[in-house]
Amino acid sequence: MPLNKGIVLASRPQAGARATLANFAPFEREIAEPGPGQVLVRHAFLSLDPYMRGRMDEGASYAASQKLGEPMIGGTVGEVVASQNPRFAVGDKVAGMGGWQLYSLSDGAMLQKVDAPGVPLQAYLGALGMPGITAWIGLNRIIAPKPGETVLVSAATGAVGSVVGQLARAAGARALGIAGGAEKCAFAVKELGYDACLDRHSQSFAADLKAAAPNGVDGLFENAGGRIFQASLRRLNDFARIAICGLIASYEGDEASALPDLRLVLVRRLRIEGLIVFDNMELWPRALDQLTGLYASGKLKWRESISEGLEQAPKAFLDLLAGKNFGKQLVRLP
Amino acid sequence: MPLNKGIVLASRPQAGARATLANFAPFEREIAEPGPGQVLVRHAFLSLDPYMRGRMDEGASYAASQKLGEPMIGGTVGEVVASQNPRFAVGDKVAGMGGWQLYSLSDGAMLQKVDAPGVPLQAYLGALGMPGITAWIGLNRIIAPKPGETVLVSAATGAVGSVVGQLARAAGARALGIAGGAEKCAFAVKELGYDACLDRHSQSFAADLKAAAPNGVDGLFENAGGRIFQASLRRLNDFARIAICGLIASYEGDEASALPDLRLVLVRRLRIEGLIVFDNMELWPRALDQLTGLYASGKLKWRESISEGLEQAPKAFLDLLAGKNFGKQLVRLP
Repeated sequence: MPLNKGIVLASRPQAGARATLANFAPFEREIAEPGPGQVLVRHAFLSLDPYMRGRMDEGASYAASQKLGEPMIGGTVGEVVASQNPRFAVGDKVAGMGGWQLYSLSDGAMLQKVDAPGVPLQAYLGALGMPGITAWIGLNRIIAPKPGETVLVSAATGAVGSVVGQLARAAGARALGIAGGAEKCAFAVKELGYDACLDRHSQSFAADLKAAAPNGVDGLFENAGGRIFQASLRRLNDFARIAICGLIASYEGDEASALPDLRLVLVRRLRIEGLIVFDNMELWPRALDQLTGLYASGKLKWRESISEGLEQAPKAFLDLLAGKNFGKQLVRLP
Repeated sequence: MPLNKGIVLASRPQAGARATLANFAPFEREIAEPGPGQVLVRHAFLSLDPYMRGRMDEGASYAASQKLGEPMIGGTVGEVVASQNPRFAVGDKVAGMGGWQLYSLSDGAMLQKVDAPGVPLQAYLGALGMPGITAWIGLNRIIAPKPGETVLVSAATGAVGSVVGQLARAAGARALGIAGGAEKCAFAVKELGYDACLDRHSQSFAADLKAAAPNGVDGLFENAGGRIFQASLRRLNDFARIAICGLIASYEGDEASALPDLRLVLVRRLRIEGLIVFDNMELWPRALDQLTGLYASGKLKWRESISEGLEQAPKAFLDLLAGKNFGKQLVRLP
């Protein structure tokens, strides 16, 4: 057996400060053989996602903190290389939460077989995985757009946002994206089918949004937070629904994500709801069905940023937090 | 015919400042005879409610501003004294939006006959009127408490809050009130049946709340806003529901009502919703049925503050905004 290699959380970022490369450290360990009921998976791709930043901090969140000295948590896809579990055979393709490492050994309870023909394996870390299901649940359960309504999506070309926009369009709504820079905005409109996309770096963002949403905004799918979120609030219509899915602008203390005056909630009768995909696991099969169908008919697109090799994961992750990546961030494990 | 007397909005309060007596002015006018289809009502009681403060300001709200020089808007109960409308006969008791005046002439479209035996007429301005229906809709449609859950209610002895607490208890939930001072808190517990009541003036409010809600808060019915609201947020459980019904602490610029960090919404998966009773008129009959039934069986209590005579209305209204009244604020029109 080769060695398992991976990356642990070596130290926590200082409170309110940015994570740094020094917070991560590599490890090498022997690979244990599967015991009864266990499965050994060789990972092909690791997913990098903003939620990981919250896990690096100490203290109560919706999930336990990442433990120091343990492999970083993370979604993975790969292939079963040894199994003593009757549900899995060598060669099965699986998605799971294998973490930042080449191999993972588990009882298989959290592994999902992924074998739809013609679907690239890493799609199960993006549009057909946790980010895509998050998009589906937030759009359908919280925003529930009616045909003709306007849905505004921040981080519109990201793993979640790119799916939200396409689902909103499929539901007959007008989809407006917000993204960082002209290149991402062009991709949002030309490839993802957004009706328009606003550059969050624009000096005239508020006016740009007003021009792009002359009838206001009925649903806001928020992945970013910060100042841009607060500008977006000003365009909300009566009875607008706001899904709070991510607040990446605030994860490292850069910008506050606040609702400065709740009178807006009252006067406009807003509904604001926090969204974490794992609260609605019962919707996963239905969501995956629709997303797989859209993909099969060529109507679900996305972009990937692939970093090569596990040693690139910490830097790729820090770049993701800084908005430097473009599309779904993956690490290929050769 | 005697003269109609009333009070108009004479001037608007300065932006962000308190309303004053100088913003109001009395008037006297001839009473017009009802034309075809019209009804003339002599008011017995005028309701004073916090929402009126918002109407005094210029600019967009969920309803149009109160026009200068016109009688102040307001709920009224009274008796039909002349009618050319086949739906109404002289002597009918009616509730409506007659405004701050002794008489109102209308086409009857907004008048509701109120004639349940044994119910005092002014109840249709309080627990069996707009405030009570607001309480019912907010509690049932937004908070929907499960038995054993904890519901926290600010302005707990006010016209809305006093009904929320009793409905929460009737639904099998634990009801915690927040009120200004020991006398109101004692009334909340002894008369309204709150399990406990917290004095918002307490120096140790946050600790008091923690002690009174050892298992956290599942539903927050917010009538006040401000600093106390922000302290209440810290006790919310995962999946808590927050009905934003009133933010009286902010209506005159005293205290901000903010949600300073939306990460709380995400981490706790909160649902926050603005509530205005007129958006759910279809629920009014069902709500009124339950409230009338509770009242008939002696299980719906409230307290009234009655000011005598229309000339007292401006001062009574300013006292209401300052939290000086106790219970449902009414003006008797003799």
